[in-house]
Amino acid sequence: MLVIQKYGGTSVGTPHRIRRVAARIAERRRAGDRVVAVVSAMGRTTDELGVLARKITDRPSRREMDMLLTAGERISMALLSMALESLDVPAISFTGSQSGIITDTSHSRARILEIRPIRIGPELEKGKVVIVAGFQGVSRDKEVTTLGRGGSDTTAVALAVGLGADRCEIYTDVPGVMSADPRVVPGARLLPVLSWDAMLELSCCGAGVVHSRAVELARRRERRFEVRSAFRKRGGTVVDGTPIEQGPEVAAVTGHPRVARVRMHGLSPAGDPGAFFAALSETVDDVSGLAHAADAGKYTCTFHVPLGGEPGEVLNRLAEVARAHRGSLDADTDHAAVTLVGTGILHGPAVAARASRVLSAAGITPTAIATGQLSLTFLVPAGAYTEAQRALHGEFVEPS
Amino acid sequence: MLVIQKYGGTSVGTPHRIRRVAARIAERRRAGDRVVAVVSAMGRTTDELGVLARKITDRPSRREMDMLLTAGERISMALLSMALESLDVPAISFTGSQSGIITDTSHSRARILEIRPIRIGPELEKGKVVIVAGFQGVSRDKEVTTLGRGGSDTTAVALAVGLGADRCEIYTDVPGVMSADPRVVPGARLLPVLSWDAMLELSCCGAGVVHSRAVELARRRERRFEVRSAFRKRGGTVVDGTPIEQGPEVAAVTGHPRVARVRMHGLSPAGDPGAFFAALSETVDDVSGLAHAADAGKYTCTFHVPLGGEPGEVLNRLAEVARAHRGSLDADTDHAAVTLVGTGILHGPAVAARASRVLSAAGITPTAIATGQLSLTFLVPAGAYTEAQRALHGEFVEPS
Repeated sequence: MLVIQKYGGTSVGTPHRIRRVAARIAERRRAGDRVVAVVSAMGRTTDELGVLARKITDRPSRREMDMLLTAGERISMALLSMALESLDVPAISFTGSQSGIITDTSHSRARILEIRPIRIGPELEKGKVVIVAGFQGVSRDKEVTTLGRGGSDTTAVALAVGLGADRCEIYTDVPGVMSADPRVVPGARLLPVLSWDAMLELSCCGAGVVHSRAVELARRRERRFEVRSAFRKRGGTVVDGTPIEQGPEVAAVTGHPRVARVRMHGLSPAGDPGAFFAALSETVDDVSGLAHAADAGKYTCTFHVPLGGEPGEVLNRLAEVARAHRGSLDADTDHAAVTLVGTGILHGPAVAARASRVLSAAGITPTAIATGQLSLTFLVPAGAYTEAQRALHGEFVEPS
Repeated sequence: MLVIQKYGGTSVGTPHRIRRVAARIAERRRAGDRVVAVVSAMGRTTDELGVLARKITDRPSRREMDMLLTAGERISMALLSMALESLDVPAISFTGSQSGIITDTSHSRARILEIRPIRIGPELEKGKVVIVAGFQGVSRDKEVTTLGRGGSDTTAVALAVGLGADRCEIYTDVPGVMSADPRVVPGARLLPVLSWDAMLELSCCGAGVVHSRAVELARRRERRFEVRSAFRKRGGTVVDGTPIEQGPEVAAVTGHPRVARVRMHGLSPAGDPGAFFAALSETVDDVSGLAHAADAGKYTCTFHVPLGGEPGEVLNRLAEVARAHRGSLDADTDHAAVTLVGTGILHGPAVAARASRVLSAAGITPTAIATGQLSLTFLVPAGAYTEAQRALHGEFVEPS
């Protein structure tokens, strides 16, 4: 059986953990499976390299950032390969380029064009475990590229497709996909099975366990994958084409603890009106509730955007986009987003009505509601984030 | 004018220093020169990666070590390129592979087979500064290799040859090639000019400023190069084909502060007797005073070997070589080597006689004497290292 495994930064965060991952792979190899292991950079290496770059310049070019960041997986993959060899398991590490991850030339957010794993097959035939650097690829003109956030998940699914693997296993530091973040909702539980569609909604709305782009690829190519703990043997979630009608009405609750409602106004786009949206999408990945209105040749654009680790940075980048289009920006950052995901959402406003009642009973007044294919998102005051998740999880998930 | 510059790990050891190097290159570029800058890994990065590897395994494979260590220059070259771009100097960084440094497959000590800088030329034509990762190359079957200690110097000289550069400048943290290590000999002074031959002797006998392999390549291809301070503008040493008769009798004093006299005995090489020497040369770079004697089918081999940062490690590796050939090892580590370099050495025993008198007057008794083409080495007690250097420098170099 050919297995693609992916180990994230936490799973390979220390030499000790790398040895533990190696032991796990060794066991699998000895049981007869052929293994390709995709690794992320160790722990916070990628962030640390980013800090180093910002000590040099505020505006590193994306090409050189890719060159810099790809050092991270190079380190972790070489160490994991060494760890396997020290257990007498033959292994070889390959960069994205050597693995045949061919991308376009869009540095820092390259798209995979094709997988040409011509070096991987022969090494597997020799009985070696192949370690592949996640997150990175190479363009047709031999430029080093990266796939952007969550890129290692995408590498793993793409290799599963490209190699026709029997299994694709995403290892992480949680037991699998949970019905909520257990740090927020004590009653959260493991979801043993989930459809690609529901997983995609979860990934887009805040559950960081697998990146949405990898889920999208899996769905499009109908690749079943599993999400498992790198530290425990039990548990895990199978994500596949489970018909969406069979899932629970609401499978999970997720969200973003800090969301800004942004209003850009006075925009007067010169030339191509699409340029503004292009600039916006280059600046933030994850915009929802987008609305756009024109008045006397000026435009106003409103949307919500989750604020990650460095809220000021996101807002500064957005203010720059507004300025570049001769407008200005107001942002109200005191919001959180809470999202329900499940097939019940398809059934129309019933879930919305019930959820609103629950929030109201908890003294929480949503400031906006948005619906996705299988999701329903409430914008609530930031201070009500935990309480809103607990109330909704208690109502929809725990009783079932 | 096309200039190849090389900046070592200390010169690019911090973001601040990288910006300073960038400013220097920018000035040069603005003056009209085309610049290719070869960089080493920042500061102690290479050593730190080695420590990380040893936390995984005592015996990392050389292939994976190369994969690991090449992350170091990838970081420094991307940062230097960013620093140049932030000064509005267009720049692009290339790995060893992208630079066309084609090597054999001997991981951790690869030899350069050819330079195919097909990507460098067009970027220089566009007016860009090209930053090249030192120390690394790629084999014909696309395996990542490293050139071993001092590899970045070799990269710089090889590129100067391959690109037909007008100048080759090795930047370092000292003002140039000195007549002695100024930390040891207060009277040490800058040597403004030196022949390849004398430089090669100096490099082999302990002066770490430029690696002997790079000097050898420069000599073979008759490439003049300069050694300059990355931090000061003045000074510098030109190394070229200065006829050796023109130099001072003794140009410089150098040495190794800690040298082991090693005796391997009871060796009984099975099969190919060359296997023992092959194993020895794979284990240590720098052996002198090699002698070999046979007695009743057993061999005894004696030599001196400088002990670097981790003396125990060198001796452990040597003990392993002895064991592998069924012998054992005695090592006396309480020695230092002090070497005179200059054309006067050619004049026979006169210099040796004078040097012996000087050492004797200082109360130092050499335990061995060895001669090179342009060098004379005394093995002295380790405790006499500083005193021996000062005495010899005072006698031969300072008066002239």
